[in-house]
Amino acid sequence: MAAFDHRKYRPAPRVPAFDRQWPDRDLDHAPIWVSEDLRDGNQALLEPMTVAQKQRFWHQIIKVGIKEVMVGFPSASQPDYDFVRWLIEEDQIPDDVTIAVLVQCREHLIEKTFESLVGVKRAIIHLYNSTSTIQRERVFEMDRAGITDIAVQGATWVKTYAERYPDVAWRFQYSPESFSSTEIDFSIAICEAVMDVWQPTPENKCILNLPTTVEVAGPHHHADQIEYFCQHIKNRDSVIISVHTHNDRGGAVASAELALLAGAERVEGTLLGNGERTGNMDIVTLAMNLYSQGIDPELDLSQPDEIIQVVNDCTGIAIHPRHPWIGEMVYTAFSGSHQDAIRKSLKKQRPDEPWQVAYLPIDPHDIGRDYQAVIRVNSQSGKGGMAFLLERDYGINLPRWMMLALAPHVQQESEKRASELSSAVVRDVLFERFTVEAPLTLTDYRLAKGTGETLEITLRHNDETLRLSGSGNGAMSAFTQAWARHSGRSISILDYSEHSLGGDSDANAIAFVQLNIDGQRICSVAEDSDTVSASLKALISGINQSGAHIGAKQTATEVTV
Amino acid sequence: MAAFDHRKYRPAPRVPAFDRQWPDRDLDHAPIWVSEDLRDGNQALLEPMTVAQKQRFWHQIIKVGIKEVMVGFPSASQPDYDFVRWLIEEDQIPDDVTIAVLVQCREHLIEKTFESLVGVKRAIIHLYNSTSTIQRERVFEMDRAGITDIAVQGATWVKTYAERYPDVAWRFQYSPESFSSTEIDFSIAICEAVMDVWQPTPENKCILNLPTTVEVAGPHHHADQIEYFCQHIKNRDSVIISVHTHNDRGGAVASAELALLAGAERVEGTLLGNGERTGNMDIVTLAMNLYSQGIDPELDLSQPDEIIQVVNDCTGIAIHPRHPWIGEMVYTAFSGSHQDAIRKSLKKQRPDEPWQVAYLPIDPHDIGRDYQAVIRVNSQSGKGGMAFLLERDYGINLPRWMMLALAPHVQQESEKRASELSSAVVRDVLFERFTVEAPLTLTDYRLAKGTGETLEITLRHNDETLRLSGSGNGAMSAFTQAWARHSGRSISILDYSEHSLGGDSDANAIAFVQLNIDGQRICSVAEDSDTVSASLKALISGINQSGAHIGAKQTATEVTV
Repeated sequence: MAAFDHRKYRPAPRVPAFDRQWPDRDLDHAPIWVSEDLRDGNQALLEPMTVAQKQRFWHQIIKVGIKEVMVGFPSASQPDYDFVRWLIEEDQIPDDVTIAVLVQCREHLIEKTFESLVGVKRAIIHLYNSTSTIQRERVFEMDRAGITDIAVQGATWVKTYAERYPDVAWRFQYSPESFSSTEIDFSIAICEAVMDVWQPTPENKCILNLPTTVEVAGPHHHADQIEYFCQHIKNRDSVIISVHTHNDRGGAVASAELALLAGAERVEGTLLGNGERTGNMDIVTLAMNLYSQGIDPELDLSQPDEIIQVVNDCTGIAIHPRHPWIGEMVYTAFSGSHQDAIRKSLKKQRPDEPWQVAYLPIDPHDIGRDYQAVIRVNSQSGKGGMAFLLERDYGINLPRWMMLALAPHVQQESEKRASELSSAVVRDVLFERFTVEAPLTLTDYRLAKGTGETLEITLRHNDETLRLSGSGNGAMSAFTQAWARHSGRSISILDYSEHSLGGDSDANAIAFVQLNIDGQRICSVAEDSDTVSASLKALISGINQSGAHIGAKQTATEVTV
Repeated sequence: MAAFDHRKYRPAPRVPAFDRQWPDRDLDHAPIWVSEDLRDGNQALLEPMTVAQKQRFWHQIIKVGIKEVMVGFPSASQPDYDFVRWLIEEDQIPDDVTIAVLVQCREHLIEKTFESLVGVKRAIIHLYNSTSTIQRERVFEMDRAGITDIAVQGATWVKTYAERYPDVAWRFQYSPESFSSTEIDFSIAICEAVMDVWQPTPENKCILNLPTTVEVAGPHHHADQIEYFCQHIKNRDSVIISVHTHNDRGGAVASAELALLAGAERVEGTLLGNGERTGNMDIVTLAMNLYSQGIDPELDLSQPDEIIQVVNDCTGIAIHPRHPWIGEMVYTAFSGSHQDAIRKSLKKQRPDEPWQVAYLPIDPHDIGRDYQAVIRVNSQSGKGGMAFLLERDYGINLPRWMMLALAPHVQQESEKRASELSSAVVRDVLFERFTVEAPLTLTDYRLAKGTGETLEITLRHNDETLRLSGSGNGAMSAFTQAWARHSGRSISILDYSEHSLGGDSDANAIAFVQLNIDGQRICSVAEDSDTVSASLKALISGINQSGAHIGAKQTATEVTV
């Protein structure tokens, strides 16, 4: 067959027809979380963790609140053995945490495993062997009975050696490894054979862990396997059903989540999804999925940046910038319409009501992120983003007409730079485009209040001084009256908005005016420590923008009206 | 509420009860693939692509075989406009490829969109507006009727402007944006209102694209939405149902895959999953999921490294090393049992039968990867891995007893280095541990064949020369007889294996012997261009390993037996 030829593959077989219930169920509580970081995660690294890294990772797992922690394969690895001894001898295991260790069905390994645990208060012995058709036929060259014998023999040794240490609260776990590729009836049969040895009860359950050792089908298929298994395994109330999903098809989280609907009670995974090949199920993602639906994940994920740091330092694998919930680009929006929607819904969000913000499935504050990164401006952005940036970083509230006027200039700048724009650049564009400070400048003014307001104003126009006066119902209308008389031009204020930049009385004011000068619509902005100066300067900037008109009518003499 | 408090979130509502069919269905063909790389992907970049990058990305999309390509928002972005003009004016669109452009429901944008497309042979106009409760209440402040009016008005403009360009084969697409958070009955109603304008027929279908603009629930929930929609939308045979999933909960691929079971026919996504926030559905992953089940993905993904290069260069975002199917760590196995299983099943895999290799869901050769990286040795590895490395890189076939003897030394070396071991290091460990070249060395030998074989051999022992002779049924037994007589020690060969290293007659031979010398079991290895020398050197190395014995009995004279 050709190199790239789908015909050499077969779909994974489905389970037999059964009474499928899981698609109608909803989750309402967290599963038992199990960290596989120090075993499945660690064994898949180019450079396995050092002792110091393992200890650091252990502390992080405990801090997050995971209560069952797989700590390795002490019978097969000296570093794992030493780590288990460190945990026990240095009294590192909190009373509400149980460690688990992995072991194959071999007596000397089982014996050494129990030795590694001397002094522990409680522990899970996790026994496994491979059960899939491929493993039976191509690796072990054994039939079902032979594979079952391995498991039963292993389970017997586990039970026997456990009895030598009666002071320890042992729990037993069995995995039909490669469950995802094992015929479901054989998975059930071999688990029941192990149960016959261990004799679990509702008071003293054993754990049956059903891994997608390799993910070979969709998450619905996995859910069917789990539900079928749960419906058919004997003494269901004496076992805890656990899943351990890998991400070969990109579905590790989905498979685990649907498995919980299907009856699983316990989920093995890692922080951020490190693990063999494509990795294990990411506990952070699944926990945040529950969280965002209003379910208590029973983990503290309020400091994901700490988790990211530890995982990065210990595994040498950096988190992808689009990693669900916590990647650095997750709470960003470049699209103008997204930005606009976020801005509007954030404004309406009240602290005491359920979160309802477009494009933000959770409040970034929950996980120690702020809104700084939410709105980012590039050439694909629109008005909302730049308005948000100006408001956030400078306290500038653009009136809508100014947003519309500014947007094309910002977009042009962004396209010119072919990169993201900072809020400083957006502010620069605003003032460069809408503040024209020459030829007319404000020197000083006097404002008197009587029936209306009377303004006397001194301006510089190039080298000359202009003294004008006018009256109106405010300084701005007084000025436009004075200017109209002086210049002979039509000038009217279409819209006006002014606000202070910051909370205290020393804060600058920013004024926006939209003028009509001889039929030309002009938008203008100015900033000053004095509110009247800010508005007058905005007007003067508008006149300056209308450029040619000033020169044409300029009479260069004192005029008193 | 506290910062990290699940109580501020609500689960997404389910669709009403309906006749759910999708969990029982199986996929058997590829969907219509749509690339969103140049739109959704590009708009989410800190630095949107340059013209040259967009052109390069376009060529890659076409090369992979995607037939519908969203190329941007030409009415809102000058670079997108220019890119559309480049495609048309430079005749870049193959006859079997259709471009799509996005536009909001605004007349001047729609008008400009059609202008951007002058000269195109066929194109999809993709119209959208936001429909979710949050968008209606918090962003647009409109009721359902108002939101519907926007869509209907937009659809009418699209239809009107399309009629101005009768030479173009137009296709219309509508998205109820934020479909995932929209009440299903309203999604259906607004789509039907748009259909009333466009009047699609089975011969001239319109596309209804149902996005998880934000992924707010599990993939089963999305599948329910899609199937419910398909069952209830009028004139089902006149519409193509399309999905566009985001990865907020890590389920973009799973949601798209289950949506295909639920009736969707078309999937929008990007190469490697770039896109807003957590990204879009990764077309490569979903296509490989189909491929690995024996379904023709109708894309050529045999060169993923080329895709990775282009995406990396154009987006500035590196692929995660554990990215499904194509990440650099995906075809690796560090675990000893995994390595052993891969090695055994690869040996049994015949080229004409379905792929059946443990831990490798597809043949890495299919996508231009080799087995080089499959087996890697670190301190968590076992015998299988190091044996594989020696065989692959040096043609050395370790006998099983030598595997067992070597394994702890390799593991120790790996633990000492706390990093992955290369095959060269494994080979060094082998020869350092199991070849001891002093004090006894081979000088020369003569071998004569009679009833048995007679060996005359000259050795150096420190500064002295030893000439020994013996006979047996081969050179090795003759030597052990000679040595036993000379030294007075018991020496016997427990096991022996020798093979040439490579195909030609000049290739070196490698010999492994397992000896019992005075009750001590010794494993030894030696290499030589001559097969007899190799085996004799292996024996001598074994004697040297037994160390003290030589010195004790050394007589330092010529001995003729």
